[in-house]
Amino acid sequence: MVRPGEFAPAHRHTMGAIRFVVEGDGAATVVEGEPLPMEPGDLITTPSWTWHDHINPGDTPIIWLDGADGPMLHYYQAGFGNPYHEPQQPVTKPVGWSRKPYSVLRPQNTPAPKATRNRPPYRYPWKDTEKAFESGAEAPGDPFDGILLRYSDPLSGGATLPTMNCEVQMFRPGEKSRSHRHTYSVIYHAFRGSGTTWIGDEKFAWEQGDSFVVPLWMWHAHENNSREPAILFSINDRPAIEALGFFREEIRE
Amino acid sequence: MVRPGEFAPAHRHTMGAIRFVVEGDGAATVVEGEPLPMEPGDLITTPSWTWHDHINPGDTPIIWLDGADGPMLHYYQAGFGNPYHEPQQPVTKPVGWSRKPYSVLRPQNTPAPKATRNRPPYRYPWKDTEKAFESGAEAPGDPFDGILLRYSDPLSGGATLPTMNCEVQMFRPGEKSRSHRHTYSVIYHAFRGSGTTWIGDEKFAWEQGDSFVVPLWMWHAHENNSREPAILFSINDRPAIEALGFFREEIRE
Amino acid sequence: MVRPGEFAPAHRHTMGAIRFVVEGDGAATVVEGEPLPMEPGDLITTPSWTWHDHINPGDTPIIWLDGADGPMLHYYQAGFGNPYHEPQQPVTKPVGWSRKPYSVLRPQNTPAPKATRNRPPYRYPWKDTEKAFESGAEAPGDPFDGILLRYSDPLSGGATLPTMNCEVQMFRPGEKSRSHRHTYSVIYHAFRGSGTTWIGDEKFAWEQGDSFVVPLWMWHAHENNSREPAILFSINDRPAIEALGFFREEIRE
Amino acid sequence: MVRPGEFAPAHRHTMGAIRFVVEGDGAATVVEGEPLPMEPGDLITTPSWTWHDHINPGDTPIIWLDGADGPMLHYYQAGFGNPYHEPQQPVTKPVGWSRKPYSVLRPQNTPAPKATRNRPPYRYPWKDTEKAFESGAEAPGDPFDGILLRYSDPLSGGATLPTMNCEVQMFRPGEKSRSHRHTYSVIYHAFRGSGTTWIGDEKFAWEQGDSFVVPLWMWHAHENNSREPAILFSINDRPAIEALGFFREEIRE
Repeated sequence: MVRPGEFAPAHRHTMGAIRFVVEGDGAATVVEGEPLPMEPGDLITTPSWTWHDHINPGDTPIIWLDGADGPMLHYYQAGFGNPYHEPQQPVTKPVGWSRKPYSVLRPQNTPAPKATRNRPPYRYPWKDTEKAFESGAEAPGDPFDGILLRYSDPLSGGATLPTMNCEVQMFRPGEKSRSHRHTYSVIYHAFRGSGTTWIGDEKFAWEQGDSFVVPLWMWHAHENNSREPAILFSINDRPAIEALGFFREEIRE
Repeated sequence: MVRPGEFAPAHRHTMGAIRFVVEGDGAATVVEGEPLPMEPGDLITTPSWTWHDHINPGDTPIIWLDGADGPMLHYYQAGFGNPYHEPQQPVTKPVGWSRKPYSVLRPQNTPAPKATRNRPPYRYPWKDTEKAFESGAEAPGDPFDGILLRYSDPLSGGATLPTMNCEVQMFRPGEKSRSHRHTYSVIYHAFRGSGTTWIGDEKFAWEQGDSFVVPLWMWHAHENNSREPAILFSINDRPAIEALGFFREEIRE
Repeated sequence: MVRPGEFAPAHRHTMGAIRFVVEGDGAATVVEGEPLPMEPGDLITTPSWTWHDHINPGDTPIIWLDGADGPMLHYYQAGFGNPYHEPQQPVTKPVGWSRKPYSVLRPQNTPAPKATRNRPPYRYPWKDTEKAFESGAEAPGDPFDGILLRYSDPLSGGATLPTMNCEVQMFRPGEKSRSHRHTYSVIYHAFRGSGTTWIGDEKFAWEQGDSFVVPLWMWHAHENNSREPAILFSINDRPAIEALGFFREEIRE
Repeated sequence: MVRPGEFAPAHRHTMGAIRFVVEGDGAATVVEGEPLPMEPGDLITTPSWTWHDHINPGDTPIIWLDGADGPMLHYYQAGFGNPYHEPQQPVTKPVGWSRKPYSVLRPQNTPAPKATRNRPPYRYPWKDTEKAFESGAEAPGDPFDGILLRYSDPLSGGATLPTMNCEVQMFRPGEKSRSHRHTYSVIYHAFRGSGTTWIGDEKFAWEQGDSFVVPLWMWHAHENNSREPAILFSINDRPAIEALGFFREEIRE
């Protein structure tokens, strides 16, 4: 939470991070000189080694979920970081700057996919997510995940970050998924609506604002037994697990 | 040109093609069951071996530029094609269908980049191109090409088609490019405004509606000596030239 | 053919070329300062824009087959070339130099696959090919091609050159292939033994020293009706056809 | 160590492993039905999920170094394994089988690089390593690592395994490296000769048969102050560190 008038001093670290905004209005994360507005439902990435700070010039608190590959980085002992030489970095780019180079209309100087290891910071606004859900509302759902959208790297179309995927999924009223398990873990946050999730032999009921975890290799299945669409935001470590050759999945018949 | 009420019968061929709409309103190209509306300035691709037909239910003629890799296909003698078993294919998908899977919010079942050889058909609406130019209007231009946008493959971020790139570029009033040459050819169409282009030792003046060619390995430079922005749409064979290892470029000092 | 004492002056061109040695002993092609010995059955590549010259210090003529992407380069009008400033380039590298960086034991400074567009020159000695055939003599053959080996790019494992593949195949006594056709052409040279090839509705008998062509999209099948193994060396343009998206194949039931 | 007549029962696991043979003669590791002979200096890989067992029909003990990504797999909790249904798997392939598909002469059915996630087992015989060192004995050494060879994946030319690289390096008499540090760790084994390594502020002398570790981000430099070549075999986790985006290196001026 960042209260009105507060700010978090500018810094950078090798840890890659994401923020998913839950509540609030008017705050922004500044990454590499570009303000990324933070509205409820927005996802914002601060990839490894990008300067960033958070500002809240508005008059309501802003609340977001923070996801970071800190534990993995800690395991490999590869953490580095340093503070910016001033409390805040200067704003040098307009709002929307990071969106431009990655549309299907690419400026000539956009690096070719894979030509760079460095990811750009990026904002995925909720209004785009909402529109994507609306247009997919009639589609058949995935057997395990309903209508699921992956926040993909704008440069390559691959994982959100080298270590983590962010996803958001909608279960329509009455929708019920099949059970499967896999060697990556998932942290869920109920953003809209309510439902239940079986994890192993236990049933968990969740509603807006709740968070829960499906640990790796646990059987799990979701159900929306309400009359409203239910939306889950989630973070998983599948990109790391796949890169290392550790991915495995089983489907319950 | 397709006149009101006319249509072109449905067919497919190994030749990949693009259409750039110059004039008209209300017509559409149907590709693989999806209607792609054709407004002035829109670019529409019909990649190799996709069923397509053109309809004009409106009351004005529609005029577009057709670009295809027919000559190359002819050289390699690899042309195939056949008519659809009915004059028109049924419309089975909603307008906008092909846009969805390739945004940064990707449905789970979008194939990974490079996992498929088949390109999706795609529409690049003029209103997006216009917005991209507006937001780049203050940026420093490329030394050879002003503000240039490449219509990139929505799946991989690469070339428009395996054999051809489509590009659109804006020269601001007074903007003048440096001279270079390269081993691919470019066909230009002046979509807005006017200007001049040096090709070898000759100077060509062009204005809206004109087309001209810069043959491979000819020195060339552009200039907008008017008081309005000038916009050139173009097609080139650089992707083929690069894939075969024949790309080469020289810059005039 | 290069006669004893003759040499071909050093030069380079954008045209990529291969030589398959048919007869002779003691000659060499010098590529980028490295002598590549030419023994019967050896394949030697001189990729695009590499300095090369041919020397024959021995006392017998040397005869080889030359394969080059000249026609394709001519079609695209992208041919460049120049003579070396002296008749012969100096020999600056030991025999075997180009083999080293591409074995499974790689020097630290070998460029990563795909990190470079430039291919190294390379020699594929006949004694390795022979050994590969011996060890595969009992294996089931490919339905269309018997025991076929592709001369792969030592850096990436891909095609021999960006435009051409070189292959060598053995049909064992009595071996007979099924019929298929594809959108690339193949030039064959009978290096050992004899056999017959159906091309369309015609049957061609061949024996050591003969050459023949299977034009694109013609049905074809091979047969070794002799008591000795038959070996065909061949060149095809499949890499170009695939890069441009023009590949297609049909199998006769 | 496996004593004469002993064997290790057949099994498989998601853990990828390598063996570097230090002493002995006549033993073999059987991987996926193929016997891989184990001579001193040989490196043998048993990639993830390949059936393997070790046999020693000879009359001397065999000693090797085992390297595995067990700790990493343990951290991610993604370990799986099971025993073969009999004590030993049957030998179904000839010696040398796994070498064939990955030479520059590739059978037609070799999967394209990257088309598969599964690595083949592979043996890198010492006699090849020795020959590679001999032919490089006059070359300028790498500033940090002398003459270093990486055991590359035979299919793609990339890392030895998805999680680990194996390398072997020679320092010639008097050769002395510069100091650097990086975010991956290295386990060394002195296979031939003797030398010293600075790690942080401490100097370690080593000779044939010794092992030592350079932990991540420690400054280190090697020196061969003897009159014989010194050879170090080593294992590092750089492929994992790079895939996760955690790689970083510093050079001491």
